[in-house]
Amino acid sequence: MLLALPMMAAAQTVTSPNGNISLTFSLTDGGRPTYEMTYKGKAVVKPSHLGLELARDKHASMGLNETDLMDGFQIADTQTSSFDETWQPVWGETRDIRNHYNELAVTLRQLKEKPVYKGSGNEPGLALDKQERTIIIRFRVYDDGMGLRYEFPQQRDLNYFLIKEEHTEFAMAGDHTAWWLPGDYDTQEQETQQSRLSEIRGRFGEAVNWGNSSVAVFSPTGVQTSLQMKSDDGLYINIHEAACLDYATMHLELVDAQTKALTTKLEGNSNAYTPNPKPSPYPLPAPFTFVSHLTPDATGLKGAMQTPCTTPWRTVMVSDDARDMLSSNLILNLNEPCKLEDTSWIHPTKYCGVWWEMIVGKSSWNYTDEFPGIKLDQIDWTKAKANGRHGANNEKVRRYIDFAADNGLDQVLVEGWNVGWEDWANMWKRDVFDFVTPYPDFDLKALNEYAHQRGVKLLMHHETSSSTQNYERHLHDAFALMNRYGYDAVKTGYVGDIIPRGDHHYSQSMNNHYLYVVKEAAKHHIMVNAHEATRPTGICRTYPNMVGNESARGTEYEAFGGSRPDHTCILPFTRLQGGPMDYTPGIFVTKLSEWSDNTSWARITLAGSLALYLTMYSPLQMAADLPEHYERFMDAFQFIRDVACDWDDSRYLEAEPADYITVARKAKGTDNWFVGGKCDENGHTAVVKLDFLDKGRKYECTIYADAPDAHYEKNPQAYTITKRTVKAGQTLKIKEAPGGGFAISLMAK
Amino acid sequence: MLLALPMMAAAQTVTSPNGNISLTFSLTDGGRPTYEMTYKGKAVVKPSHLGLELARDKHASMGLNETDLMDGFQIADTQTSSFDETWQPVWGETRDIRNHYNELAVTLRQLKEKPVYKGSGNEPGLALDKQERTIIIRFRVYDDGMGLRYEFPQQRDLNYFLIKEEHTEFAMAGDHTAWWLPGDYDTQEQETQQSRLSEIRGRFGEAVNWGNSSVAVFSPTGVQTSLQMKSDDGLYINIHEAACLDYATMHLELVDAQTKALTTKLEGNSNAYTPNPKPSPYPLPAPFTFVSHLTPDATGLKGAMQTPCTTPWRTVMVSDDARDMLSSNLILNLNEPCKLEDTSWIHPTKYCGVWWEMIVGKSSWNYTDEFPGIKLDQIDWTKAKANGRHGANNEKVRRYIDFAADNGLDQVLVEGWNVGWEDWANMWKRDVFDFVTPYPDFDLKALNEYAHQRGVKLLMHHETSSSTQNYERHLHDAFALMNRYGYDAVKTGYVGDIIPRGDHHYSQSMNNHYLYVVKEAAKHHIMVNAHEATRPTGICRTYPNMVGNESARGTEYEAFGGSRPDHTCILPFTRLQGGPMDYTPGIFVTKLSEWSDNTSWARITLAGSLALYLTMYSPLQMAADLPEHYERFMDAFQFIRDVACDWDDSRYLEAEPADYITVARKAKGTDNWFVGGKCDENGHTAVVKLDFLDKGRKYECTIYADAPDAHYEKNPQAYTITKRTVKAGQTLKIKEAPGGGFAISLMAK
Repeated sequence: MLLALPMMAAAQTVTSPNGNISLTFSLTDGGRPTYEMTYKGKAVVKPSHLGLELARDKHASMGLNETDLMDGFQIADTQTSSFDETWQPVWGETRDIRNHYNELAVTLRQLKEKPVYKGSGNEPGLALDKQERTIIIRFRVYDDGMGLRYEFPQQRDLNYFLIKEEHTEFAMAGDHTAWWLPGDYDTQEQETQQSRLSEIRGRFGEAVNWGNSSVAVFSPTGVQTSLQMKSDDGLYINIHEAACLDYATMHLELVDAQTKALTTKLEGNSNAYTPNPKPSPYPLPAPFTFVSHLTPDATGLKGAMQTPCTTPWRTVMVSDDARDMLSSNLILNLNEPCKLEDTSWIHPTKYCGVWWEMIVGKSSWNYTDEFPGIKLDQIDWTKAKANGRHGANNEKVRRYIDFAADNGLDQVLVEGWNVGWEDWANMWKRDVFDFVTPYPDFDLKALNEYAHQRGVKLLMHHETSSSTQNYERHLHDAFALMNRYGYDAVKTGYVGDIIPRGDHHYSQSMNNHYLYVVKEAAKHHIMVNAHEATRPTGICRTYPNMVGNESARGTEYEAFGGSRPDHTCILPFTRLQGGPMDYTPGIFVTKLSEWSDNTSWARITLAGSLALYLTMYSPLQMAADLPEHYERFMDAFQFIRDVACDWDDSRYLEAEPADYITVARKAKGTDNWFVGGKCDENGHTAVVKLDFLDKGRKYECTIYADAPDAHYEKNPQAYTITKRTVKAGQTLKIKEAPGGGFAISLMAK
Repeated sequence: MLLALPMMAAAQTVTSPNGNISLTFSLTDGGRPTYEMTYKGKAVVKPSHLGLELARDKHASMGLNETDLMDGFQIADTQTSSFDETWQPVWGETRDIRNHYNELAVTLRQLKEKPVYKGSGNEPGLALDKQERTIIIRFRVYDDGMGLRYEFPQQRDLNYFLIKEEHTEFAMAGDHTAWWLPGDYDTQEQETQQSRLSEIRGRFGEAVNWGNSSVAVFSPTGVQTSLQMKSDDGLYINIHEAACLDYATMHLELVDAQTKALTTKLEGNSNAYTPNPKPSPYPLPAPFTFVSHLTPDATGLKGAMQTPCTTPWRTVMVSDDARDMLSSNLILNLNEPCKLEDTSWIHPTKYCGVWWEMIVGKSSWNYTDEFPGIKLDQIDWTKAKANGRHGANNEKVRRYIDFAADNGLDQVLVEGWNVGWEDWANMWKRDVFDFVTPYPDFDLKALNEYAHQRGVKLLMHHETSSSTQNYERHLHDAFALMNRYGYDAVKTGYVGDIIPRGDHHYSQSMNNHYLYVVKEAAKHHIMVNAHEATRPTGICRTYPNMVGNESARGTEYEAFGGSRPDHTCILPFTRLQGGPMDYTPGIFVTKLSEWSDNTSWARITLAGSLALYLTMYSPLQMAADLPEHYERFMDAFQFIRDVACDWDDSRYLEAEPADYITVARKAKGTDNWFVGGKCDENGHTAVVKLDFLDKGRKYECTIYADAPDAHYEKNPQAYTITKRTVKAGQTLKIKEAPGGGFAISLMAK
């Protein structure tokens, strides 16, 4: 701070409403926008530059804007303001959300000479012309963090531009501990790494090994957001983004002692995909600085913009209390209010589904094994030879419908109902599914009618195989079919490489696609739960029919070799910052070899599985295991029946990244509370102070806990169920087994 | 021949029905498929290899097929057969088309060791495994040429594959004269070059200069098809392709004395775009050999295939009479029969339109100049300030409707009717048009009603700005709107770079897109005339609602600096081989400065303009000039009123590439004939023997000819109209001025 301040000219400072956070903006180093951030006087972000490199385009009309928006700026205006509003989400962790911040908007003017194309010849002459461009950098400072974004007003010299790279820096104050995923243009399903920042490069090879699911990494110090860190002096710091709409998803590239250029090509790594990596011409920041790295399109560029427009918000959350990381609404608050006029058709949902048995390998999505490959318009499905393993058959779906109807579940997901699964993945097939033709053993009409008779709905499944052009071509008919048969929710999937080839899951065009699907779905009153799509950034506030995403390593990996027991104690700090995850919890029979040839096993106790319905907030909750497995443990399954998935209030009682999380939530429109606690492989004793209950009122308390000898590997199904009456002011101490947890229901009397 | 034959093993020969053409297949050089072709004993194609290089894919499942289909083949089977059928096109140059060929199908087996991925680790081990793959090379030999294609049956070791490059060779027997366009992934609107094959490299720089419209050339000897050539011994040879459906468009790369590798990167040429050019590992063919070069996708690959499938047909037409090049139906015959059950709604069409005045610069497509840029959802068009130059306004459109109704034209094209033209081109805007919202001065409902009252229709215009994703998103609503208001034809446009970025106009995915639009249009009973789309390859036989394409340098270039007078004497030999062109002829006022600020001028006489309605066959014919210009020459315009655009018979009377073309056509369902002759800058005296007329019958003959002093530059509007009665057996000698031509109507009495 002392060193940095003398460099600054005309610094502007804005503080959070409670004064804990201070943010200072200035121009340094030849007119480069620079900011820094403190929390209770401690440096959170040391002086860091802001700016964008623009790409030169072959079209003269675009060439107007090819000079970078990196330096040469002057401050033209600064505006400060305050905002305080309380709003109600359509669904969420709390009934009310307060959006309270102080704002600093800095208008910057850049006067530059630009190369201009003169004439229209084959080798047009270059000349220099003066241009004047204006951008605004807007900061919103909350009590639990800040957001900043670039805004580009419409103006003569900045109408259309191509982004070569965004250079938003986050200079960390020390060698923090970080929970990170390798930066990847196509997946975020890796196991989280925990290390010092200085250790990222050394750990990177291990982090991207094939078993860890990496596909397209770009730098040996590239990591994903939301990135959770902890400093040696006890600050919890989280970097993410909000409102990433028609813009590429941001990764972070760490500058360390060995960094020679941004972006470094990953030599000798067959997973690395770096289209035309060109080091930035700008000086490297100091070590421990993260620099934004956007997901490229097929040509290596990062985005095409038209003014007026803005970037997403770049967010830094900070607190000395880890629980504040989990209760923060900063990401939601930085998104636009709901744009749907009618939201009455959007509802939180509990569901089961014909799914886990395919994931485990016991049954198949595809109907036949008869053909080496299929073309949808050339198969007579009624004559195809059934393989006898097809999961989505009439009998089985009826069984699931009955189970859902009998056990308070709202919907039944059925995967593999539609033709095309015979050769759906990684074949570069464009016309892979039509989303309307059922397999011959799936009676679309009769099954929906049966479900509706029993008071439940089927939940639609659209695996796109990442052939997005094909999905968009069929979207209208697919949604019309859903409306016709009474579906109101769809789980979409984006497995495999994007078609058109060369594009990536997290590019600007794909982010546009995901949102296009959500908007089209809203027109049909359809809720969307997108798997393998980009990580969410709070846009469910604006489009609350986006009720879920996967975008992380979900329960399916318990069948693919397993995830570490601390995985679910990390996700709420990272992946869940941007929006709910369809984690598909509820595996009661964790040793898959008990009922299949799969030797993988879930690293969790049965009581721990119940806890996830609280610690992994989502308006969409699956009971993922098989009905026959639940029927062996109906006393425990009672909690899944009882637990809400929409809330009037949430209180994070205990939290430490990768160690434990304890949360109490009040069910929407009721006086009932539910409490869940989840811990890592070391176990934990939760202390639950019941001070959130109504004073003087009695509650019927049911505690689903690990048995004393429970253990995620050795004894996962050992649990106890205890009932008692409690009231406010009491304290419950609950022992969680290694890889375990607990769940409590508190029914107001 | 003598040198080549000893190398061949088990050669198979098939001849054309009349015996003039002979085609021989063999395996040479280590099992490489090889063919050669003669015409009346003269070499047309010297021994030439066939094969495909496949790309290695990161997915193990695809990796099965990564070894090339280039060599190591054995002949497993050969089949010969004959075919003779006469079919009737929905529209065309003749009522009947004979499809008569002898066929040779060679089944080839390739036994190879392939590298196989073992395991699924990050660095999977490679092992060798045996694979057996079968392909079929099918030859169809006609009296006027041949077609060959690769067929890939479904089989264990060849299910999905990526094409790195197709290596179909065409070894020319000498240093022919060629009429060529620079090979380009995105345009075919250049002026044709005429040179020896050996001169292509030296002329290439001139050929691609900016004024010649090149965009994305790939090799200094790369040329486009259809490529017309003439040998020193008087053979006319044409190379093209037929039935290019879901496959990349083929270019040709010439091997000359300086060729060191295929593909050569174009150093120092700012127009060159060569993604990852990698020379083929296979030996270079002899000089004067053309090798196929497919249009790449954004990643540089050429195609993704799933068996069973085929390539398009690669065609070589040959004759010692240039007229046979024009009357050939080889390309149509190699396409599949019509797939539309009901074609009653498809009809040839004469039209005028609000278009030429925008091309010339006198009025504008866009409605307002108020904004630096627009976003469709953020403009209140009723409040936008009109620029006063908007062409597609109610008053003007009514004027055109009246002109069409009064003068026997069927439809009125209106460009610029829909919002979005303010910043439509080359801005990388995805959401550029919605195709349903008219500008405020275009009353969609009233104008259609008025047109229908007057017995004409409006012709829809959908400029996509090459934002294909946007067009596909709006296609359903756009066609529904056309149906609602009574449009039955659409002119589409693909100006500018393809979005998604990195793709090209002639790639596999774009060819799929164009056909997707045609198929979707057919469902709505809509005819399609696609501009800037890929060059046609006869698929109008299969989908006859594809009534036109641009895909070459059209009349618009007469306003952009002009085209050479011989241009229209070349197009029928080249561009028109694959299907009709919407050339938009009929410019009567050739000096644009007479009525605008545009100093460009059309290199054609007025009588020559009339000739184009016959020499440039199309079921869609525009009268492109302004109504007020036609009203100055109503006696000449009478021919445009009278001339048919669908035919029972066509006779090419005279032809020489780039020199002259004379053709007589019999109007469909009548006894009337029309004759047209067009020549280059040197003039020509046409000799029209009226032996095609019914014997003993009298015809009212009207001759629209160049006046004696006519000249395309000095005196273009000097024409004579002569009426007389003629009968079969008579001969007309008609003098065509430099850049001129003539037109004759022969009305049976």
